[in-house]
Amino acid sequence: MHIYVDAMGGDNAPEAIVKGSVDAVNEWGLSLTLVGKGSAIQNVLTSLSYPEDAIQILEADEVIGFDEEPVRAVRRKDNSSLVIALEAMKAQDDAVLVSAGSTGALLAGGLLKLGRIKGIKRPALATPIPRGDHVTLLLDSGANADCKAEYLLQFALLGTVYCKNVMHIENPKVGLINIGTEAEKGSTMAKEAYALLSQSNLNFIGNVEARDILTTESDVLVTDGFTGNIILKFLEGVSSYLLRGLKDAITQSTKGKIGGALIRGNLRSFKKQFSADEVGGAPFLGIRGGLIKAHGSSDAYAMKNAIRQATLYADGQVLEKITAALSEENHVKKNTGENENE
Amino acid sequence: MHIYVDAMGGDNAPEAIVKGSVDAVNEWGLSLTLVGKGSAIQNVLTSLSYPEDAIQILEADEVIGFDEEPVRAVRRKDNSSLVIALEAMKAQDDAVLVSAGSTGALLAGGLLKLGRIKGIKRPALATPIPRGDHVTLLLDSGANADCKAEYLLQFALLGTVYCKNVMHIENPKVGLINIGTEAEKGSTMAKEAYALLSQSNLNFIGNVEARDILTTESDVLVTDGFTGNIILKFLEGVSSYLLRGLKDAITQSTKGKIGGALIRGNLRSFKKQFSADEVGGAPFLGIRGGLIKAHGSSDAYAMKNAIRQATLYADGQVLEKITAALSEENHVKKNTGENENE
Repeated sequence: MHIYVDAMGGDNAPEAIVKGSVDAVNEWGLSLTLVGKGSAIQNVLTSLSYPEDAIQILEADEVIGFDEEPVRAVRRKDNSSLVIALEAMKAQDDAVLVSAGSTGALLAGGLLKLGRIKGIKRPALATPIPRGDHVTLLLDSGANADCKAEYLLQFALLGTVYCKNVMHIENPKVGLINIGTEAEKGSTMAKEAYALLSQSNLNFIGNVEARDILTTESDVLVTDGFTGNIILKFLEGVSSYLLRGLKDAITQSTKGKIGGALIRGNLRSFKKQFSADEVGGAPFLGIRGGLIKAHGSSDAYAMKNAIRQATLYADGQVLEKITAALSEENHVKKNTGENENE
Repeated sequence: MHIYVDAMGGDNAPEAIVKGSVDAVNEWGLSLTLVGKGSAIQNVLTSLSYPEDAIQILEADEVIGFDEEPVRAVRRKDNSSLVIALEAMKAQDDAVLVSAGSTGALLAGGLLKLGRIKGIKRPALATPIPRGDHVTLLLDSGANADCKAEYLLQFALLGTVYCKNVMHIENPKVGLINIGTEAEKGSTMAKEAYALLSQSNLNFIGNVEARDILTTESDVLVTDGFTGNIILKFLEGVSSYLLRGLKDAITQSTKGKIGGALIRGNLRSFKKQFSADEVGGAPFLGIRGGLIKAHGSSDAYAMKNAIRQATLYADGQVLEKITAALSEENHVKKNTGENENE
C-alpha cells in the first residue's frame, strides 16, 4: 500500500492537510507521501512530531484551484500536486491518492492519467452518508451529470463491491432513488434502471423515495450524478439551516438559553453521528487507481479520517475486486446469451 | 370565484377536509362546494357551525385512491369526487379545486377534463417552500419526470406570473437548480436551460446549488419534475429525521430533558416558520382551471390554508395573467424572428 496525499488541495491547505496526515501517521502507524510545495509542507511539519521515516515529500510547484476548468488544468499543469501524484501512482498497483482539492480536477486527472478499469462505462463518486448506526453509499454523487440506465447498473455493482470489501457487508442491499416506490414510477431512465437492476444478480430492494434516504435499509443507493449531487448538497444545506435556525430560536429567550446550555452535550453527540467529517472521504470507483475525495473544507480531523478511508480502500483490494466482479458479470451475461452483441 | 373542495381526497378525508373547509368559511367569509359522498360529508358538518348558505354539497359516489393508476382512474371513475368536481368546473371561468388526494390523479384529471392553457407545453406543480421571512416557489416539483430545457423556461414564466399576481412580488427573481454556479456546469438539460433563461426577459439570477435552496434570494426556482420532487421529499425526510433525532438525543439524559422542556416553546415557533401546513397547498400551473394540491396528510389546519391559496389564486387572476404573459412572450419572439418556425 502506498498513500499519496495532495498537500495543496482544499480550503485549508496545506496546514490542515499536513496536520491531518501527521495525525493519521501517529494514530494508525502509517507511512505516506505528501505531494506539494516542499517548503510550505516543511513549514507545517516543523512544529509537529512523528516518526521521520513515515512521511515522504514529493515536490510539486503548481496547484490546481477550485475555479479552474478541470481537463484544461490537468493537461496544462504538469507540475501540479495532483498531476505529480497521479504520475507517481502509475507505476504502482496499490497506490491511493487522497485529495481535498477540486472534485472535477481529481476525476479528470484520474481519467486522463490512470484511465478507467476495463469494462467500466463511467466511474462514479461514491459518497458515504453516515447516520448513527448505518452508512449508506450514494453513487453517483457527482461525477456524471448525464447518465444512462446502464451506468446506474454499473454504479450498483461498484457500490456493492465496495460495501462488501471495505465496509464488510456480506450481501449489500441496493436501492434506486426514485420519485415513487412502484416499478413503473419515475423518469424514463429510472424506469429502465429499475428493470436492469431487477434482472441483475445484485441484491436489489427496489425504489427508495427521497424522504426515506436517511432511514433506508439500503447499503448502496444509486442515481445519476446530477440527482446524487443535489441530494448530497441539499443534505448539507438543510442540516446547517435547521441547526443554525434552532440555535437562533433557542437563544432568543433567557429560558431558551438556559435550556440550550443544558442540552449542549446531547446536541454535540447527535451532530457527530451524521457528520461527514467522521468518514472524511469518498472514493471514485471505476478508475484504475485509488482516489479518495475529501471535502474541500476538510480540517485536520476530516483529513485524518479521509486517509483512513484510503487504507481501508487499499486493504479491501477494491481495484482487484471490481475487476473480478466485472469479469464475473460478463461471464454470467455470456452464459445467458445477453452479451452476444457486445 | 367558485371554490370546489374534494372532500374525499387525502389520508384524513372526509373529516379533516370538511372541518378545514368550515374553518376557512368561518375565518374568511367564503362560500364553497364540497364534492363527495353527501352522507359522509353531512355526518361531519352536523357537529360544526357555519353560515348554512356558505357550503354546498355536490354528490359524488366514488373515490380515487392514492394507489390507483391516475389516467385509468380518471377515465373509469366518472362518479369520483375528483371527476365530478372537474366536470363542474368546466362551465366556469374562475373555478378553483382544492384536493388532498392523489397528485397524479389531480394532474391527469386536470389535463383530461380541463386541458392545458394554449401555448403551454407542460403544466407544472409549483410548491412554495416556506422559511421564516421568505417563500421560494419550486417548479416543477413533480408533474413531469422527464423534461426538456424549453419546459423549464416555461416553468420560469409560470412561476414568475404566479409570484407577481398571488405573492405580489414585483420582479420575481428566477434561479435554476444546478450542481454548480457557473453557466457551463451541470447536465446537458441544465446548461441548455441556463442559456434559454439568460436570453429571456425574465429576471434570471443564475444557477442555485442545492445547498443554497433554503437561503437563496430566488423567488422562483426551476428544475425538472424528477429533481424537484426529490428536493421536496428530501426536505421532508431530512427535517423530520433531524428533529426526531434531536428530540431523542435531548431526552436521553435528565439534564437534557429539563433543557428540552425549557426550549419547547422556541422550538415550536421555529418549526412553524417552515411548516408546509402554513401554506397548505401548491398550484398546478398551466392547466385551464385552478387546481390546488394539498398534502396527502393534510389536517384541518393545512386544509384551511390550502383553501386560502385557492382564493389567492382566483383573486390573482392567475389563468388570465398566464395567458397574457404567453401571448406577450410570443409577441416578443415574433418581433425578434425567433418564432418563425413554430
